Amino acid sequence: MFVRNCWYVAGWDYELPPGQILAKTIADQPLALYRKQDGTAVAVEDRCCHRHAALHLGEIEGDCIRCMYHGLKFDASGRCVEVPGQSRVPERAVVRSYPVVERDNWLWVWMGEPARADADLIPFSVGPGDPDWDMRPSSMRFEADYRLVLDNLLDFSHLTFVHRKTFGGEDFAASLPRISRMERGFRVERWVRDTPALVFTQHVMTGRYDMLIDYTVQLPCVFVMRFQVYEAGKATEGPSDGKLLLDTWTCQSVVPASAGECTYYFSWGASKATAGREVGDLLYAGIHKAFLEDKEMIEAQYRNIRRDPDRPVINIAHDAAVNQMRILLDRTIAAENAGLAAE
Amino acid sequence: MFVRNCWYVAGWDYELPPGQILAKTIADQPLALYRKQDGTAVAVEDRCCHRHAALHLGEIEGDCIRCMYHGLKFDASGRCVEVPGQSRVPERAVVRSYPVVERDNWLWVWMGEPARADADLIPFSVGPGDPDWDMRPSSMRFEADYRLVLDNLLDFSHLTFVHRKTFGGEDFAASLPRISRMERGFRVERWVRDTPALVFTQHVMTGRYDMLIDYTVQLPCVFVMRFQVYEAGKATEGPSDGKLLLDTWTCQSVVPASAGECTYYFSWGASKATAGREVGDLLYAGIHKAFLEDKEMIEAQYRNIRRDPDRPVINIAHDAAVNQMRILLDRTIAAENAGLAAE
Amino acid sequence: MFVRNCWYVAGWDYELPPGQILAKTIADQPLALYRKQDGTAVAVEDRCCHRHAALHLGEIEGDCIRCMYHGLKFDASGRCVEVPGQSRVPERAVVRSYPVVERDNWLWVWMGEPARADADLIPFSVGPGDPDWDMRPSSMRFEADYRLVLDNLLDFSHLTFVHRKTFGGEDFAASLPRISRMERGFRVERWVRDTPALVFTQHVMTGRYDMLIDYTVQLPCVFVMRFQVYEAGKATEGPSDGKLLLDTWTCQSVVPASAGECTYYFSWGASKATAGREVGDLLYAGIHKAFLEDKEMIEAQYRNIRRDPDRPVINIAHDAAVNQMRILLDRTIAAENAGLAAE
Repeated sequence: MFVRNCWYVAGWDYELPPGQILAKTIADQPLALYRKQDGTAVAVEDRCCHRHAALHLGEIEGDCIRCMYHGLKFDASGRCVEVPGQSRVPERAVVRSYPVVERDNWLWVWMGEPARADADLIPFSVGPGDPDWDMRPSSMRFEADYRLVLDNLLDFSHLTFVHRKTFGGEDFAASLPRISRMERGFRVERWVRDTPALVFTQHVMTGRYDMLIDYTVQLPCVFVMRFQVYEAGKATEGPSDGKLLLDTWTCQSVVPASAGECTYYFSWGASKATAGREVGDLLYAGIHKAFLEDKEMIEAQYRNIRRDPDRPVINIAHDAAVNQMRILLDRTIAAENAGLAAE
Repeated sequence: MFVRNCWYVAGWDYELPPGQILAKTIADQPLALYRKQDGTAVAVEDRCCHRHAALHLGEIEGDCIRCMYHGLKFDASGRCVEVPGQSRVPERAVVRSYPVVERDNWLWVWMGEPARADADLIPFSVGPGDPDWDMRPSSMRFEADYRLVLDNLLDFSHLTFVHRKTFGGEDFAASLPRISRMERGFRVERWVRDTPALVFTQHVMTGRYDMLIDYTVQLPCVFVMRFQVYEAGKATEGPSDGKLLLDTWTCQSVVPASAGECTYYFSWGASKATAGREVGDLLYAGIHKAFLEDKEMIEAQYRNIRRDPDRPVINIAHDAAVNQMRILLDRTIAAENAGLAAE
Repeated sequence: MFVRNCWYVAGWDYELPPGQILAKTIADQPLALYRKQDGTAVAVEDRCCHRHAALHLGEIEGDCIRCMYHGLKFDASGRCVEVPGQSRVPERAVVRSYPVVERDNWLWVWMGEPARADADLIPFSVGPGDPDWDMRPSSMRFEADYRLVLDNLLDFSHLTFVHRKTFGGEDFAASLPRISRMERGFRVERWVRDTPALVFTQHVMTGRYDMLIDYTVQLPCVFVMRFQVYEAGKATEGPSDGKLLLDTWTCQSVVPASAGECTYYFSWGASKATAGREVGDLLYAGIHKAFLEDKEMIEAQYRNIRRDPDRPVINIAHDAAVNQMRILLDRTIAAENAGLAAE
C-alpha cells in the first residue's frame, strides 16, 4: 500500500540536531537518522544486521554509527567497519542506507531503489527557513491510513462541514474546483469571490474578499498550497482585480508510518510583505485547531473502515480528484510491485 | 454469535437528550441515535454511505442527520436527501436505519430484518419512570463475551460464592430452583425460607425472612426479576405466609458491543408502598458493589477462555438453565443464519 | 517455543505468604499457587474445569482451593472433592496440578509430565536465605521473547556497550571467554586482569583489579554466576594471585509468560566474609540500573524482530555460546514435541 520509489518527509530539520539519533518509521521501515561531521544527514535502517538491535539506541562516532548492543560499527553507507572480538568483518554485515536530501527544512528520504533517487523529483515547497515568508512548522499524529488524509486534502468541500467553525465557507461545498493532471499528482484551483474571511480570522478581517486556493498534491503525499486573500474585486473570471491583502503558503506532507498510522508534517505562513508576526500566530493557531477537527473525523472514519473494509463507497461530484489520485497511487504501486518503472 | 431478529437495549432514555447524537455499538454494528423534532428516537448506521465517515460526528437538521465530513444529508429512514455540489442524489445513497421503540425508559433497537420488528416481542420490564416504583438506572462495561454474563444470570448458585460478602445466602448453591421454558427464554423461581437478609442489608434487616426470587431471561439478553422479602412464615411450600416487607424489581440487559465487550444496563428498585428512598439508596449501592464482583470474575473467566477456546467444560446440576439458554441461543442464531424463521 | 520438562521459577518464596493465592503465567500456562496448612507450596492450573473461572480469585480451605464462582472445591492434587448442589462429583472434574519444589527461596514448578519431575534437575543457586551471603532478591518484567534475554546472558561483550556507564569494561568485547558444555546448558568463564573496577563501584574501588566471571546457563533459563574481585596480581594464567577483596553470587532466571513477555527474577549479593551491608546496597542499585539498560535494548530488539521475523542474522565470534544454547533449546523442544526423551 506504499509507493517506494519516491521521497518521503522524515521530519523537520530541527528534529535532527548534530550528535543525536532520530528514530522514524516510514512505510513500515524503521529508520535511524543522524548527521555526519559536516552536517550531512544520513538515514540507515534502524536495525543492526547482527541481531536486529535498534541502531537509534547506538552512538555516533565521527561519520559512523555504532550499535550499542554488541558494538558493530557502520559507516554512513551502512557498511560494517568494525566487529568487536574479531579482526575480520563479514561481507554480509551491512545495514541498508537510504538516500537523504535536506531541502526547504525538510529531511527527504528515498525509500525505494537508491539508484533511482533523483533529487529533482522532490516537490517544490517553501520552508520555515525562507527569509521572505514567516512559515511555522509543526506535526501531528493520525491513527489512520495515510490515504484517507490524502483524500481529505483533495476535496476541500469538507471545509464547509468539518471546518465550519474554523475555516468555513459555503462555496467549497457548493461549487467544484478546477482539477488538472500533473506528472506525479494533481493541481486543484479555485477562486472564491466576494465572500467573508475564514471564520477564525473574522475578528480582524471583517469585510468581504476574493480568495485564491491553488494547490498541488504529489506522490506520495506532498501538498503545497498558495492561499491568497484580496479585497473583493469586480472580476468574475480569472484573477481577482482587488488589492492583494494576504499572501500565504502552506506546505504539508502525510507520511505513512504503517498501514494504520501516519505523521502529518505541516507549515503555514504569510509573506512578510503582506503580514506581520501576529498574522503568523493566527495562522499557526488556526491550522492546529482545524487539523484536530480533521484528525477526529478521519480517525473515526478509519475505525469504520477497519471494522468492515469491503463495504462499497458512493461517488459524488466532489470525489473527482480523490478518485483520480487513488488510481494514480494504485497504478504506481502495482507497477512497482510488478518490477516495472514507477511512472 | 449474535441473534439479529430481536430487540436490543441501546441505552437509557436519558442518554439521548434532544439535539444530541449518541454513538452505540450493538452486535458489531455501529449506531448513531438521535431524536426527531417530535422527540421520536431514530437509529441509523453510524457510517455515511459516501466514504464511511461517522455520522455521530454529524449534525441534526430537523428530522434529518447531516454527515459533517462532506455534507450528505439523510432523513430518518436513512435515505440521502442532499449531496453538496450536485443536484442529483444517487439512488444507492442510503444508510441503514433500524426500528426503535422507546419503552420503560429503555431505547429498544431491532437489529434484524425491519419487516419482522414487532414491538410485542419487547420483554416486560419496569422502568425508572414508573411512578409506583423507585427504580434506579445504571450501566457498566464488561470486557467479556455477553453470553458469560447470561450464564451468570441463569445460575444464582454464584451468589453464595461471588457475592458472599454482598448478597450471600448458602441456599442458592445448596438447592436448585424451578426452571420453566418460555417462548423466547426461561423462567427461574425459588423460595428461600427462614433465612438471614442479604448481607449488605443486614445492618437494617436483622431478623429472619422468606425471600422470593422469580425471574425471566429472554432473548437476546433481558433479565427481569421480582425479588420480595417477607417476614419468615410457616409455609414450607408455595408463597410465604409471612408479611410482605419489601417488594422490588430489577431489570437488566446485557448488550454485546462486539465478541469481547458488552454493556450491562441495569436497575433495581423497591415499590414505594413497601420502602422509602433510603432503601433505594441501599439497593443502588448494593447492586453496584455486587456487579463489580461479577465483572472481576467474568472478565478473568473470559481471558481464560480466550487463551484456550476449545477446552471442554464440566457440567453440574446448577448448569441446567445455563445450558438450555445456550442451546436456545445457538439454535436461534443457526436458524437466522440459515435464512429461516427465528422462532 | 518452550521447554516443558523442566523446572521454571514461579517466583520468590516471599511472594507466596500463607493464606494467599498467587497468579503466575509460565509458558502460556496460567497457574494459581498457594500453601497447604503445613506450608508446602501447591500449583494448580488457574482455570476451574467447570466453566474456566480463575482459581486465583478463589479461597483456600485447609489444603484445598475453592473456586469462588460456583463453589467447586479441589484438593492439592487438583481432584474435585465438592460440587455444590449435588452429591456426586464428576470423574472428569479435575484441574491440572504441577509439581512444586521450594529451594533456595525460589518456587520451582515443573511444567511438563509430572512423572518426569526430578528435583535433582533443579540448578544450584544461592538464595537470599543463605546465612553466609547477603543476597538481595528482585524481579523485572520484559516485553520480549525470553530467548533474547538468554542470548544477552550468554554474551557478555554487551557489557562494554549496553552497560558502558554501569558495568563497563573494554575487555568483555575485546576478548573471548572460555565456553564449556554442561548436561543441560553451558559454562562461561573469564578472567579479566589488571583492570579498573566496574564503573558503578569506582567511587569506592579506585585501584586496579583482577576479576573472575564464572557462570552457568541451564535449561530452561537459569543463570548463576560467581563474580569475584581480587587485588591485581601477577598471574597471567589461572586464578589471580592477588588478595580476594569481594566474593559475590548472582542468581537469575528468565521465565517466559508468553511468546512476547517474560519475568526476570534475579539476586546479587556478596559473601558476609568479604563485604558489609553497604556493598549489598551498591550491588542491588547497580544491577537494577543495568537491567533497565538491558530492558530498553532488548524490548526494542524484540519489536524489530516482530516487525520482520524472517530476517537473517549475521554471526560473529561472540555468538558462540548464544548459538549453541539456541541449538540446545531447539533440539530439546523438538524432542519433546516428538514425544521423545528431552535430554
